Amino acid sequence: MDLKPTKPLSGFIELLPAQQRCFDFCAARMLDVLKKSGFNQLDLPAIERAEVLTDKDNWDEIETQMFLFQKGDTKMGLRYDGTVGLSRYVAGHLNDLVFPFRASQFSKRYRGERAQRGRYREFYQMDMDIMGVNSLSTNYDAEIISVIQRTLNSVSEFIGENAVRVGSRPFWDALFDYLEMSDNQKKDVFVLIDKKDKMGDEDFAEGLSDTLKDVKKESQIKSVFTNGYSEFLNKSDNLDRAVAELNDFMKTLDLFGVKNAEIDLSITRGLAYYTGLVFEFKLLNYPELGTAAGGGRYADLAGKFSKTKIIGVGAAIGFSRIFVALMESGAIDLSRFEAPVDVSVLCMGNENLDYAVSVLNAFRDAEVASVAYLEANKKFKNQIEYADKIKAKFSAIIGETEKADKVIALKNMTSGEQVVVSVADAIKIVLGV
Amino acid sequence: MDLKPTKPLSGFIELLPAQQRCFDFCAARMLDVLKKSGFNQLDLPAIERAEVLTDKDNWDEIETQMFLFQKGDTKMGLRYDGTVGLSRYVAGHLNDLVFPFRASQFSKRYRGERAQRGRYREFYQMDMDIMGVNSLSTNYDAEIISVIQRTLNSVSEFIGENAVRVGSRPFWDALFDYLEMSDNQKKDVFVLIDKKDKMGDEDFAEGLSDTLKDVKKESQIKSVFTNGYSEFLNKSDNLDRAVAELNDFMKTLDLFGVKNAEIDLSITRGLAYYTGLVFEFKLLNYPELGTAAGGGRYADLAGKFSKTKIIGVGAAIGFSRIFVALMESGAIDLSRFEAPVDVSVLCMGNENLDYAVSVLNAFRDAEVASVAYLEANKKFKNQIEYADKIKAKFSAIIGETEKADKVIALKNMTSGEQVVVSVADAIKIVLGV
Repeated sequence: MDLKPTKPLSGFIELLPAQQRCFDFCAARMLDVLKKSGFNQLDLPAIERAEVLTDKDNWDEIETQMFLFQKGDTKMGLRYDGTVGLSRYVAGHLNDLVFPFRASQFSKRYRGERAQRGRYREFYQMDMDIMGVNSLSTNYDAEIISVIQRTLNSVSEFIGENAVRVGSRPFWDALFDYLEMSDNQKKDVFVLIDKKDKMGDEDFAEGLSDTLKDVKKESQIKSVFTNGYSEFLNKSDNLDRAVAELNDFMKTLDLFGVKNAEIDLSITRGLAYYTGLVFEFKLLNYPELGTAAGGGRYADLAGKFSKTKIIGVGAAIGFSRIFVALMESGAIDLSRFEAPVDVSVLCMGNENLDYAVSVLNAFRDAEVASVAYLEANKKFKNQIEYADKIKAKFSAIIGETEKADKVIALKNMTSGEQVVVSVADAIKIVLGV
Repeated sequence: MDLKPTKPLSGFIELLPAQQRCFDFCAARMLDVLKKSGFNQLDLPAIERAEVLTDKDNWDEIETQMFLFQKGDTKMGLRYDGTVGLSRYVAGHLNDLVFPFRASQFSKRYRGERAQRGRYREFYQMDMDIMGVNSLSTNYDAEIISVIQRTLNSVSEFIGENAVRVGSRPFWDALFDYLEMSDNQKKDVFVLIDKKDKMGDEDFAEGLSDTLKDVKKESQIKSVFTNGYSEFLNKSDNLDRAVAELNDFMKTLDLFGVKNAEIDLSITRGLAYYTGLVFEFKLLNYPELGTAAGGGRYADLAGKFSKTKIIGVGAAIGFSRIFVALMESGAIDLSRFEAPVDVSVLCMGNENLDYAVSVLNAFRDAEVASVAYLEANKKFKNQIEYADKIKAKFSAIIGETEKADKVIALKNMTSGEQVVVSVADAIKIVLGV
């Protein structure tokens, strides 16, 4: 019989135990920050109705981007982000939730497209969202940025410092109006701006020229990427309002103690959802990772699900993108995650199993991380080799003498030092108390 | 525009925030037991190649049971258990892992079949497995049962006590040989035994009679369900060996301190994987939930993936089955999960936002679970109502006077008592130190 493949499908992540412990450790630290910041951790279904996932009718096109399937008459698929499910959930539980409602999610998301380097088909994101009914102060936008920075800082020993750039969708709307662009031009230019980084300056300029056919307007738009809003002060009320909002917002970020924040109007966060301020985080030591987190404000989050107007501000941290990349590149030192076991109980001979198991139970009752090597008839050499390989900090060696005397031979696996002690004393030594 | 449905798809679980906190709390407690018992927590892809998920060729039949999809030439689907992925992982990392290798998994699994009451299409199971190369002492089978009981006991305040019944696949093999049954009869009778609980005694008897056409053999098989192995002592070496193994095993369980354990040969754990001892846990207070956890030994876990013989003993706890059912029936008191926030910072007027945010930051720096109501221009009545609704233990009320005096008005939301204190003192009061 042919053997089946042991590698996961391309684009799927599979970590070794020490990597997984690092991944889980960072997730737990970050989730604790969110919990203590009052976010309600949600765990929504990974599968949604197709009509929830998309408004598009072009099934074939959607199918290349998502994992879709049909059960009976129902088309469904795996979520590609946390926002679709959250919108549905909030709209369905308006009377169960307190607003402003604060939600966090740490879950797997799926992209059906062909796997590319650094782009996974299954990946974790960590989301946080604050949602209000009918109104929501932009103070919450500032708080979300503050919380992301606190969350990232909680694992700064692994990922270093971060910086945030803030953009404004209303600024671009006001600018497009000021430049008297047609609706089609607005749409096309916005797509260009969104793809500018990928397409490069030359293609961007060419795209602008094809769309606008107006050298002055083209150069005014390009000026935003070099000079920000400086050319557009006192040009229109809407432009002034957008700029004032942005400047006020930076002051509020400062109140929140947010570090390394600056205005960057080239930040637009794609085409979907966002209608207000938008922002992106980078890791200062790892600019090659691109956007570590991003988000913004949406004026009508759940309009497809409810007549109640839900205004939201939210963000997602690209958790797998950051941590898998940094572990794989060796940027994160995994040594502290390689030795999870405090004591390895070694039992010399099945006739001593009763005592060895009572020792194991005593360690476990005391919440000492402990395993036993239960192939009791194996030689000492094999048993100590196991303790060595799993990097146990101590071995509790049990033979006939130890059983008779109700003690254990406790060997420090780093120093090699060995002492004969009672189980109670061994627990104290191992826990360092 | 028609509004889209807000309910999740049938068979999918969606919890409210307090339920989710209870769910997460129990999971964390149980996972901590596994971690301290030396299990390596793994998080494997939810999507596997179809050929990994199944050996069957009958695609249509499989499709009704699973969520399957095709990308390019590759057929793939969502995992239905944790064992398929684990086998692949272990076979693919033989040189990266230390054996006996201890793995735990807490992850979502998927069943594509039509949703039924109490059967979910997306659900969590918590697995633990110990795997050896070429050999694995049955001491590990006993340890797995001990660890499951410790894991369940760690949340006994929610789920009460548990009991375990142990069966033996080798006993049935030996009995079938002793009764001189044909290979087809063995297979058919085993299917009947496995389905006995569902089909009822009458249909079971009829099935036996159709298959065996031998009243004496039929009554001997039925006797196992009433008298256990008592009729079969000293009948054949294999029967004696199977019974002796089982009795020895119960003694080892006793060494491990396992409570409420008994032999029950009607436990068979279905048709797949298992080749040795098998076991099932029930919750004594909630027999209606059926099997809370189950597992057993498999002689050749990864034979489809590797020529190396991996012997395993493993089990899965039906985590969603237990906790979702008990929360929905009201058996679990959720009140302690309804008030996650210690302090709600209330800011009276945007001109005091700078001070309010500095207070919020101070609480958060001290790891006090805290939120701020940042609609600073709302009336006191609205703000205190919010603090009340989210069940904050304290409110930190900030107005002009508090800002000027660098203090806060700290209101105990249960007693209604209010004191004016410094932030440092407020932190002490809230943390109870």
